[in-house]
Amino acid sequence: MVFKKITLIGSSTESFDDAVDDAVDRAEATLENVHWVEVEEMGVEIATADEREYQAEVEVAFQLED
Amino acid sequence: MVFKKITLIGSSTESFDDAVDDAVDRAEATLENVHWVEVEEMGVEIATADEREYQAEVEVAFQLED
Amino acid sequence: MVFKKITLIGSSTESFDDAVDDAVDRAEATLENVHWVEVEEMGVEIATADEREYQAEVEVAFQLED
Amino acid sequence: MVFKKITLIGSSTESFDDAVDDAVDRAEATLENVHWVEVEEMGVEIATADEREYQAEVEVAFQLED
Amino acid sequence: MVFKKITLIGSSTESFDDAVDDAVDRAEATLENVHWVEVEEMGVEIATADEREYQAEVEVAFQLED
Amino acid sequence: MVFKKITLIGSSTESFDDAVDDAVDRAEATLENVHWVEVEEMGVEIATADEREYQAEVEVAFQLED
Amino acid sequence: MVFKKITLIGSSTESFDDAVDDAVDRAEATLENVHWVEVEEMGVEIATADEREYQAEVEVAFQLED
Amino acid sequence: MVFKKITLIGSSTESFDDAVDDAVDRAEATLENVHWVEVEEMGVEIATADEREYQAEVEVAFQLED
Amino acid sequence: MVFKKITLIGSSTESFDDAVDDAVDRAEATLENVHWVEVEEMGVEIATADEREYQAEVEVAFQLED
Amino acid sequence: MVFKKITLIGSSTESFDDAVDDAVDRAEATLENVHWVEVEEMGVEIATADEREYQAEVEVAFQLED
Amino acid sequence: MVFKKITLIGSSTESFDDAVDDAVDRAEATLENVHWVEVEEMGVEIATADEREYQAEVEVAFQLED
Amino acid sequence: MVFKKITLIGSSTESFDDAVDDAVDRAEATLENVHWVEVEEMGVEIATADEREYQAEVEVAFQLED
Repeated sequence: MVFKKITLIGSSTESFDDAVDDAVDRAEATLENVHWVEVEEMGVEIATADEREYQAEVEVAFQLED
Repeated sequence: MVFKKITLIGSSTESFDDAVDDAVDRAEATLENVHWVEVEEMGVEIATADEREYQAEVEVAFQLED
Repeated sequence: MVFKKITLIGSSTESFDDAVDDAVDRAEATLENVHWVEVEEMGVEIATADEREYQAEVEVAFQLED
Repeated sequence: MVFKKITLIGSSTESFDDAVDDAVDRAEATLENVHWVEVEEMGVEIATADEREYQAEVEVAFQLED
Repeated sequence: MVFKKITLIGSSTESFDDAVDDAVDRAEATLENVHWVEVEEMGVEIATADEREYQAEVEVAFQLED
Repeated sequence: MVFKKITLIGSSTESFDDAVDDAVDRAEATLENVHWVEVEEMGVEIATADEREYQAEVEVAFQLED
Repeated sequence: MVFKKITLIGSSTESFDDAVDDAVDRAEATLENVHWVEVEEMGVEIATADEREYQAEVEVAFQLED
Repeated sequence: MVFKKITLIGSSTESFDDAVDDAVDRAEATLENVHWVEVEEMGVEIATADEREYQAEVEVAFQLED
Repeated sequence: MVFKKITLIGSSTESFDDAVDDAVDRAEATLENVHWVEVEEMGVEIATADEREYQAEVEVAFQLED
Repeated sequence: MVFKKITLIGSSTESFDDAVDDAVDRAEATLENVHWVEVEEMGVEIATADEREYQAEVEVAFQLED
Repeated sequence: MVFKKITLIGSSTESFDDAVDDAVDRAEATLENVHWVEVEEMGVEIATADEREYQAEVEVAFQLED
Repeated sequence: MVFKKITLIGSSTESFDDAVDDAVDRAEATLENVHWVEVEEMGVEIATADEREYQAEVEVAFQLED
């Protein structure tokens, strides 16, 4: 049983919870067997966005098929 | 005046705020004089839970009685 | 183009999102050209507050005028 | 569901694997519901031991009863 | 000459050495030109496994083809 | 031979040395076989204290009985 | 909007700037929408190279298509 | 309630305690509402000083006026 | 003798050396008695710039007047 | 009583335990009064070795003679 | 002008200041041109010492002769 | 095969690349079998130098003779 971890950054104009969910949604749309997620960084993008954009960098761990 | 710190991991199917509160609630139910809490890690458990389970690892500082 | 970063700690009795917004609001009230914010620490103050006070330490990056 | 983490240091004159097992054995002898262990530090004690003593500092996570 | 690094988590019911080898085996089965591996984390999964499962998170560096 | 580590915060209005001693004194008053102490953090509390209060967060390692 | 980050190591016999550019060039040759790069490590390989080889490990962030 | 943190380096030819106090004295001479101080680094300057100069880098947190 | 440290981010389309110099130039234009600079982070901005923009985050230490 | 610490990297084609022992053996062959060893990094060299070469970077602490 | 850094651990039964001085004294007794010292770790040895032994691990930087 | 690592700080009035080379040159002048170098810190000395002095702290790894 081997897991692989990738790093995604999700975003939301609502909350950090939604920013994490954004990244998890994306991971689950393209990967089988997502097991857990670790939050690495959180920030807010202001200058290049129309409104405050909450961002969360996460590591997504999923099980590789044998 | 001496403080002690212990490490708890709270969880919630709703949000990270609730996961932190879960750990603080537990601490306050069994400890006197809880002073502050530091968030150490946040993550989401997916594979072993029915729905996404937000988890927060916190350090709880409480004052020891003399 | 030079940016400067300062460190603020916002607080809220509601949530960590609001604590971060509290710091960003303060930064935008006194600084021009705030570009982004990085969350450094999160904690809950309990003993010296009437109710749980969520706190977020953030680094605020803003562009200096030429 | 709340977990607590404690820090133990196990030792062995054979190997680091045995030093980790030493700490896990101790944890399981006194705690219910040990879920996982994270290795924090590894070292070798030489001067105060008869032979090389492999040591492993681990964090042990166990589920608290409701 | 450009290298890429990916993060894998190998496991074994025998030892940490075998958990690292498990990840390296997987990497070499699917990647050409694996050059080196760095151990990032080690842990033991207990609650969700039949017996103690030693896990090792490693970064695998391999050379990209030109 | 298994050690356990706990985290204490000692304080003193005199010096950091005294703040560390304060935590060690407390540990030795309630624990057998304290072996060593590692200093993790030092700080000064000003607003909530009558005079400057030097604080030291330490990890205390003690040997568990067999 | 979701970003993914990958880790590359570029190299150059001239300078660290060129080693970073080497990794960025490779990223842009195979990925759309590269947004930014963070330098993680810098080093010099000497024994296995004909002349000093400057190396830079970077994290490359690119926007995933919806 | 928003706090700001600044970084100062105090010095003393006597002790690290005095070096921290030196920085706190300076902060309190120019800032209202200093709440706490965190010690970040300690060092000794030897070559450019007549005698050993103990230095302490601290972060000073003070409450901003509304 | 008390030093203060501030955090600046300089940029250049040429090199990291120039990005550091950019921040130092700015510091020296507005501050007396700049003593030293520590490089904290280096990165390359690509998406929001016309060409690759090398950025360097530095801490600038300067001596406060008595 | 003053200790000095040096950094060695041992290697073995068998296991990480042997790689640590390799470094300790070397230290004890040339130094008196080796007291303890701390493991800093572990990795596997693959491309430049005939078979997998387990490597361990350790800090070796030994007591200096008065 | 090239500096070299070595790691020493000084000790004292009196204070951490004295433990640092102990290491600096040793460095200056055997090395020319010691420029500065950085404190890396502080701890207290209890079990193997007659009384509390304050220890300080420091990095000593000295200028190499041309 | 055992490697040893030492820490050097090179300097240059031209660039960080030259500061790293300065340290590597020194290492190769006095050590056989230098294998690789890792950059640990970069900074600029301003107050005690006639012009900006770029400094690079590096760890140099070289193979010990059997």
